[in-house]
Amino acid sequence: DEVRMYARDVVLKEIEKHAADGLGRVDYALWSGGGNVVKHSEPYVVAKWSYWFSMSNRNGVHAESYKMLKPSFGEPGQCFPLKGSSGFVQIRLRTPIVPEAITLEHVAKSVAYDRSSAPRDCRISGWLQGHDSDVAVAEKMFLLTEFTYDLEKSSVQTFNVLDPAGSGVVDTVRLDFTSNHGSSSHTCMYRLRVHGHEPDHVSMMAMQY
Amino acid sequence: DEVRMYARDVVLKEIEKHAADGLGRVDYALWSGGGNVVKHSEPYVVAKWSYWFSMSNRNGVHAESYKMLKPSFGEPGQCFPLKGSSGFVQIRLRTPIVPEAITLEHVAKSVAYDRSSAPRDCRISGWLQGHDSDVAVAEKMFLLTEFTYDLEKSSVQTFNVLDPAGSGVVDTVRLDFTSNHGSSSHTCMYRLRVHGHEPDHVSMMAMQY
Amino acid sequence: DEVRMYARDVVLKEIEKHAADGLGRVDYALWSGGGNVVKHSEPYVVAKWSYWFSMSNRNGVHAESYKMLKPSFGEPGQCFPLKGSSGFVQIRLRTPIVPEAITLEHVAKSVAYDRSSAPRDCRISGWLQGHDSDVAVAEKMFLLTEFTYDLEKSSVQTFNVLDPAGSGVVDTVRLDFTSNHGSSSHTCMYRLRVHGHEPDHVSMMAMQY
Ligand SMILES: [K+]
Ligand SMILES: [K+]
Ligand SMILES: [K+]
Repeated sequence: DEVRMYARDVVLKEIEKHAADGLGRVDYALWSGGGNVVKHSEPYVVAKWSYWFSMSNRNGVHAESYKMLKPSFGEPGQCFPLKGSSGFVQIRLRTPIVPEAITLEHVAKSVAYDRSSAPRDCRISGWLQGHDSDVAVAEKMFLLTEFTYDLEKSSVQTFNVLDPAGSGVVDTVRLDFTSNHGSSSHTCMYRLRVHGHEPDHVSMMAMQY
Repeated sequence: DEVRMYARDVVLKEIEKHAADGLGRVDYALWSGGGNVVKHSEPYVVAKWSYWFSMSNRNGVHAESYKMLKPSFGEPGQCFPLKGSSGFVQIRLRTPIVPEAITLEHVAKSVAYDRSSAPRDCRISGWLQGHDSDVAVAEKMFLLTEFTYDLEKSSVQTFNVLDPAGSGVVDTVRLDFTSNHGSSSHTCMYRLRVHGHEPDHVSMMAMQY
Repeated sequence: DEVRMYARDVVLKEIEKHAADGLGRVDYALWSGGGNVVKHSEPYVVAKWSYWFSMSNRNGVHAESYKMLKPSFGEPGQCFPLKGSSGFVQIRLRTPIVPEAITLEHVAKSVAYDRSSAPRDCRISGWLQGHDSDVAVAEKMFLLTEFTYDLEKSSVQTFNVLDPAGSGVVDTVRLDFTSNHGSSSHTCMYRLRVHGHEPDHVSMMAMQY
């Protein structure tokens, strides 16, 4: 009877977490929350996609790019494919935050047709873009974390920011991948999440001056 | 070994319920089942939404209103936002039913950016609209339940109809909220469900004459 | 404590399976993976649907047919309805496979308004269409399995291919249903999945000559 209650308790807690986006953690890159892909390397356009691409890209941002900022619900294909085995995506967050961790997700092994298109070696940078133009970005950009996406682990992998204390407030995050898991044609971005907390007003003031 | 089997049993049952819309209970307000928002107080339109609003409202019903009649799947932003801290929505059910309970849902705490936009004090009324015009509604309308949405409890909260025996058949339900959890700008409706059962034909006849 | 760890283990494994499309099994009919409905018997068009139908059917394939090749997430109404109590659908898979099993799914009992529209007696055939025209199909078509969809069992029902060794490679699958669970007006296809494995190149060569 104790076992019964205990088991039920564990189950309900884990299902609650599962229902809460799988991690139960706020995602500031989420498209439905206001996040957006603002720049990326050349997309991978196959016949099926090309029509949509030609008619609906905006400022060079692919119309399907938002797919990497929303849940995939276990569906292969719900991703944003980039050309080749290296490239980048740049994401404007819903609001400036102090970043704490990054989650990268590919489709689960059990339902995937082929996982050679998963990104492998990744590097995440961040900065505060504000309303500036692009010019001075390089000097403000700093490294958040570097990692290798591992096909043998869970499909949802979270990596802590290397130096949370040292990193400032960011409103833009960039993922550079320098390799994938074998595909020479393309790399699929299923989902990128950015975790952290909103700075209090005092630290925002300090930061801006 | 008994524990093993028992634990697995509990898990599968709870996951089945989770997969069955979280509650395993029929929802007569569900949009994909034929429910519709037919009237509401002033929507909250921010820059991002305004274009869509201007081009796609119909009979004064906002094009995004259907979002409150479908699952949110743990995504913040999958709601219908109304202006201010009080207001209403009126929903035509898929079919006339004897109402038993109402479920109100906001986004889960663990993934929410801010829950000050959650509705707080609510009042649910119902009536049988049929093909009538709006004129005589007031006299037929009756109270189904009143409740306070509590941010400390589970994000999915079900409230029984006060007097299921006393309430008649309804095909329209109205939620009035008189306060929210702090936002002065808007109140977000993530999802409203209406539970009950279809009357048998005898009681329908009795009711209509 | 051992129980604690054990229970958590079971839970996490089952939730992982649930998150992986419920079965944790590759589906070669999945629309987001490249599967398509290419032919079907007369669709069931009610007022609400007719506008969409008239404007968006292509080669006689209903614009909503893809709904039967994607998850329903516990939502009644997320199906492709066909007229009457018998009919068929023909599906082009994402790639040629050696078929192993078929999964047919209807909406869960606990959230359904009415399940009389569920298919009942079914027959699945398969063949390799390649780039041929339709002419010679009949001679190449072979039976994969026959089954009865049972409303008393789980809503997701998997049936093994009768003779996996004997069946060849297929890229097209056809479901014929000869009865449903009581509705005289229509039969709803919530989801059909096709499981199997991609043939190695040697067997493909052998097959094509
Ligand atoms: K996705
Ligand atoms: K919703
Ligand atoms: K479906």
